[in-house]
Amino acid sequence: MPRTVSDGGEDHGADVASRTSSHRRMEHGHGYKVGIPPKKSLLTEFSDAVKETFFADDPLRQYKDQPKSKKLWLGLQHIFPVLDWSRRYSLSKFKGDFIAGLTIASLCIPQDIGYSKLANLPAEVGLYSSFVPPLIYAVMGSSRDIAIGPVAVVSLLLGTLLQNEIDPKTHPLEYRRLAFTATFFAGVTQAALGFFRLGFIIEFLSHAAIVGFMAGAAITIALQQLKGFLGIADFTKKSDIVSVMKSVWGNVHHGWNWQTILIGASFLAFLLVAKYIGKRNKKLFWVSAIAPLTSVIISTFFVYITRADKHGVAIVKNIRKGINPASASLIYFTGPYLATGFKIGVVAGMIGLTEAIAIGRTFAGLKDYQIDGNKEMVALGTMNIVGSMTSCYVATGSFSRSAVNYMAGCKTAVSNVVMSTVVMLTLLLITPLFKYTPNAILSSIIISAVLGLIDYESAYLIWKVDKLDFLACMGAFFGVIFSSVEYGLLIAVAISLAKILLQVTRPRTVLLGNLPRTTIYRNVEQYPDATKVPGVVIIRVDSAIYFTNSNYIKERILRWLRDEEEEQQHDQKLPKTEFLIADLSPVIDIDTSGIHALEELLKALEKRKIQLVLANPGPAVIQKLRSAKFTDMIGEDKIHLTVGDAVKKFAPKMVDNV
Amino acid sequence: MPRTVSDGGEDHGADVASRTSSHRRMEHGHGYKVGIPPKKSLLTEFSDAVKETFFADDPLRQYKDQPKSKKLWLGLQHIFPVLDWSRRYSLSKFKGDFIAGLTIASLCIPQDIGYSKLANLPAEVGLYSSFVPPLIYAVMGSSRDIAIGPVAVVSLLLGTLLQNEIDPKTHPLEYRRLAFTATFFAGVTQAALGFFRLGFIIEFLSHAAIVGFMAGAAITIALQQLKGFLGIADFTKKSDIVSVMKSVWGNVHHGWNWQTILIGASFLAFLLVAKYIGKRNKKLFWVSAIAPLTSVIISTFFVYITRADKHGVAIVKNIRKGINPASASLIYFTGPYLATGFKIGVVAGMIGLTEAIAIGRTFAGLKDYQIDGNKEMVALGTMNIVGSMTSCYVATGSFSRSAVNYMAGCKTAVSNVVMSTVVMLTLLLITPLFKYTPNAILSSIIISAVLGLIDYESAYLIWKVDKLDFLACMGAFFGVIFSSVEYGLLIAVAISLAKILLQVTRPRTVLLGNLPRTTIYRNVEQYPDATKVPGVVIIRVDSAIYFTNSNYIKERILRWLRDEEEEQQHDQKLPKTEFLIADLSPVIDIDTSGIHALEELLKALEKRKIQLVLANPGPAVIQKLRSAKFTDMIGEDKIHLTVGDAVKKFAPKMVDNV
Repeated sequence: MPRTVSDGGEDHGADVASRTSSHRRMEHGHGYKVGIPPKKSLLTEFSDAVKETFFADDPLRQYKDQPKSKKLWLGLQHIFPVLDWSRRYSLSKFKGDFIAGLTIASLCIPQDIGYSKLANLPAEVGLYSSFVPPLIYAVMGSSRDIAIGPVAVVSLLLGTLLQNEIDPKTHPLEYRRLAFTATFFAGVTQAALGFFRLGFIIEFLSHAAIVGFMAGAAITIALQQLKGFLGIADFTKKSDIVSVMKSVWGNVHHGWNWQTILIGASFLAFLLVAKYIGKRNKKLFWVSAIAPLTSVIISTFFVYITRADKHGVAIVKNIRKGINPASASLIYFTGPYLATGFKIGVVAGMIGLTEAIAIGRTFAGLKDYQIDGNKEMVALGTMNIVGSMTSCYVATGSFSRSAVNYMAGCKTAVSNVVMSTVVMLTLLLITPLFKYTPNAILSSIIISAVLGLIDYESAYLIWKVDKLDFLACMGAFFGVIFSSVEYGLLIAVAISLAKILLQVTRPRTVLLGNLPRTTIYRNVEQYPDATKVPGVVIIRVDSAIYFTNSNYIKERILRWLRDEEEEQQHDQKLPKTEFLIADLSPVIDIDTSGIHALEELLKALEKRKIQLVLANPGPAVIQKLRSAKFTDMIGEDKIHLTVGDAVKKFAPKMVDNV
Repeated sequence: MPRTVSDGGEDHGADVASRTSSHRRMEHGHGYKVGIPPKKSLLTEFSDAVKETFFADDPLRQYKDQPKSKKLWLGLQHIFPVLDWSRRYSLSKFKGDFIAGLTIASLCIPQDIGYSKLANLPAEVGLYSSFVPPLIYAVMGSSRDIAIGPVAVVSLLLGTLLQNEIDPKTHPLEYRRLAFTATFFAGVTQAALGFFRLGFIIEFLSHAAIVGFMAGAAITIALQQLKGFLGIADFTKKSDIVSVMKSVWGNVHHGWNWQTILIGASFLAFLLVAKYIGKRNKKLFWVSAIAPLTSVIISTFFVYITRADKHGVAIVKNIRKGINPASASLIYFTGPYLATGFKIGVVAGMIGLTEAIAIGRTFAGLKDYQIDGNKEMVALGTMNIVGSMTSCYVATGSFSRSAVNYMAGCKTAVSNVVMSTVVMLTLLLITPLFKYTPNAILSSIIISAVLGLIDYESAYLIWKVDKLDFLACMGAFFGVIFSSVEYGLLIAVAISLAKILLQVTRPRTVLLGNLPRTTIYRNVEQYPDATKVPGVVIIRVDSAIYFTNSNYIKERILRWLRDEEEEQQHDQKLPKTEFLIADLSPVIDIDTSGIHALEELLKALEKRKIQLVLANPGPAVIQKLRSAKFTDMIGEDKIHLTVGDAVKKFAPKMVDNV
């Protein structure tokens, strides 16, 4: 006779007799009943849920059992991690950071000037944004490898969104003010998300959608560079591929400047070759790293010597000398542009976060250290808030520069400090030298930089693995190319969310069969050996049962029943169905709509003289079924620990379990 | 030596030797490997997904294997079910329908006049909407018990949304035109959702949210009736409780008309008593059904006799005689109100659908017949489209009248036809008699009708079973009461969606332990007997692994590991963890982000010298892991059919399975 084991009861010390009868126990039931978890109070349940949702990575672990003064110091360290890692700083680390810092500085200076143009801002603003924000980040951030500064996609996004509101050519001051306002609110958004531990929101943009979005943005940016590359004066403001192609080919007879094309094309070839060398041989990465600055120096010299600007080659002209002026007074805290700046800031901030967090996680994984995503967001947000008050625009982590940083051997965020210092020196001393830099060079540098954003390898992998993911990827890609950056982003988010909702609405239900000579029941589609049990229909519901799918699940189960009944009509040897066993192992949770659906299922089955049996309900489910008195309705003897138990109890002759 | 059984291989006819060794087979492995489902072509996979999503209830089942002419006839029957059930009509059925039709007609006539006022429309429009729409529904609809006509909540919703746009007092004609436009687009929305089989969208409004929303709407409607009930002339247009209370108490000295209050209060008491009698004794339901019409007749007579309208009692005054005039020309197909009408129509249409589908399903469940939700939507949509062209406003199924219909013994939709005929006769002959009906009576009727919408029993059940559901319920309730119907609805939808998204972002992961003397592994929290296996950490992931939760799952698993390592530091007797077994039974699906997370997990574990083992992956998961070459990365020997197998292979000495 099987012994029932109740909650908390112990059953150790089995005697010899029970040991030899243990075989029989396995065959006749092991005596375990479905367990009811201890009931938690409402407050405990709520606080557990909050803890898991917002503090999932247990950030306060280290604060346990510490005296008050230590807690204060730990708290300060939490906000300013520099207080922690600076104590372990050494000369060897500085060597690595110094080299890395110089390398990424050489890369970022030409990129800053180019990206400012993408954002329709003066060239010096890009350099400002590589000066102040990295310093703030070094003090507050947690990633040791990320390289901070303006990035292509965010610059493009800002440029298109801002110029929809204000024309940068006719109202440059208002445009700049709006840019700083957007930067301020981008920082506020980022810091707020991090502070309220809502960081999981950015995970709602799927990896596949980001791949598509980035590739589309990269192509859009590259196409826009055709303006500087071909030397066309009159170019469309729109970013979609159709308008750009019209501008390019419309101007083919008049607007293309062959000198510009010559300069641009030759240096683009040089940059691409350098990039290729860097990829093929990891040790020669510095070749592709210094190539942009080298190109700038050579081309500037060349234009100066030949006075090519007199031949129609557009040049950078003036870059304002000196470091960041204060700009807190320029931010729109009132007036009509406040709302616009806020909206643009939120979008730019979220995109910036997505990039920076992805970079931070990638390198933390490579070097095996932890990053607190929410803390990073606070650091990035503060960086942008301060930046908005010092004439910077939205800065974030750059993929290409962070990779260079990593390969150049950076050890801590001091590499960013070194880069920042170099930029400062540039602003103070070297800016006049950029006067003769041709725009074509900047365009070439940008084109070669963004080509790296087109991750076709990932796209191919996505195609192979998950076609729906690939659809999201393509949707985002074409949305950006054929419409605009904002709509492409919207499509990416919408497809990501639709994918979740669709999965939630149409969960899988599978028919289970017995693997002969075992008590294991598996999906008959996946396991051709699994044999259906005559007279018993066993369904497994592969999802939580919520309002979004409860009705579908109920009707799907009834449809499985009807299919079985049809088979029985064709094959008279099959016995009539008497039991429906619902395997609830994957049903993580159930709400009132789900319980309602189960009740309706029970009634529908009773009308057909079929008994409903539940197998392996989880803790949340069994608790709720009890609260709703469903367990009384169905009968306690109809709830079993495993499908095997249920079959053994109700249809023991129908299976071959040995 | 366990025999491996490959896909498609058979293993029947085991000889005697293997039978006696079967015990050993169960102990040493049953020889089953993880099955790979047959690979479907992309087209098959896609069409299967479409079929399950949109045609889940297999509506074309009956069309299989039928000649062409039969298919055409079946097709016509599908659109006009009347062609089907009318062939089986009989006199006994007509008796039931006739009685039921008369009963619901007596109920609907006073309600129609009252609900038109809620919608700020002339009283005859309500009667029109109980004439034409039920006729259309009888021809196209599938429910045998639903009673069609104007309903309280939709009337309130229309009234508030429309009067935000046009003032019904100053511009009654434009108001009415906008109402018909909204009705037209409500019908278009409903029919389109049904035609494109997108009906599952309305399931996104959870049952709990609807309970709260309906209760809040009921209270709002009841409060607004205080205008007619107390005889106040100057009343707020807003619907939130604060404004209404201000109007009521602000007018307490001047505006309350005692005669009106006397009439209203006495008949309200009468109606409530009649309702109570009907509830207590099911056989006396007709008492509560005819009470409204009786009250109207008595009070009209009373006002006529006493000329109470000269004493400040507001009366209905004129109801236009005659049946529905055509109104197709009145619908705004162009102009500024087109967009407004469209928006209001979509909202009203969706709410109308929610009510009607809920009613249809409830009674279909009670009488055990099937309803095709999408087909119903097409019927309801057509009904409203035609209604909008015949001076009707949005009609749908009414809870109270359908219940009366059911209890009065209706057999088919002919009960609606009978009701419709009575309404027609009323319009043609009886409308002048309503001249002296006091508004107070209509208010009383509405108040007693909507009190039934406050489903406190359901709300209590929701509180007991699922606290988060209850939060959604309360959010919708207070949103309607303190803000407005539209915002309450928005809050209801938002909370419903947030609940889904939150579940998707923070899925449950549980630690598994072995139930001694079995090969069953269960959640250690739910089963105190479950013993953890030393040296092995067994985690079950209770969700599909998607981009929304892949990072969280990876970090949560690593946190489980850290917790175990802490325990090992405290208790030196525990062996170091060498294996992590991930039970993927509930993991229904995985996307590229999920695979990426598994790869990162694998790397993190390798650094800690822990091996990763997967147990029981489903068909979709194992397919994708192969496509992504993850199975090569982890090794085929690390993928097992059950957790028990995995433990037996890698840590056989650590468990007591016999």
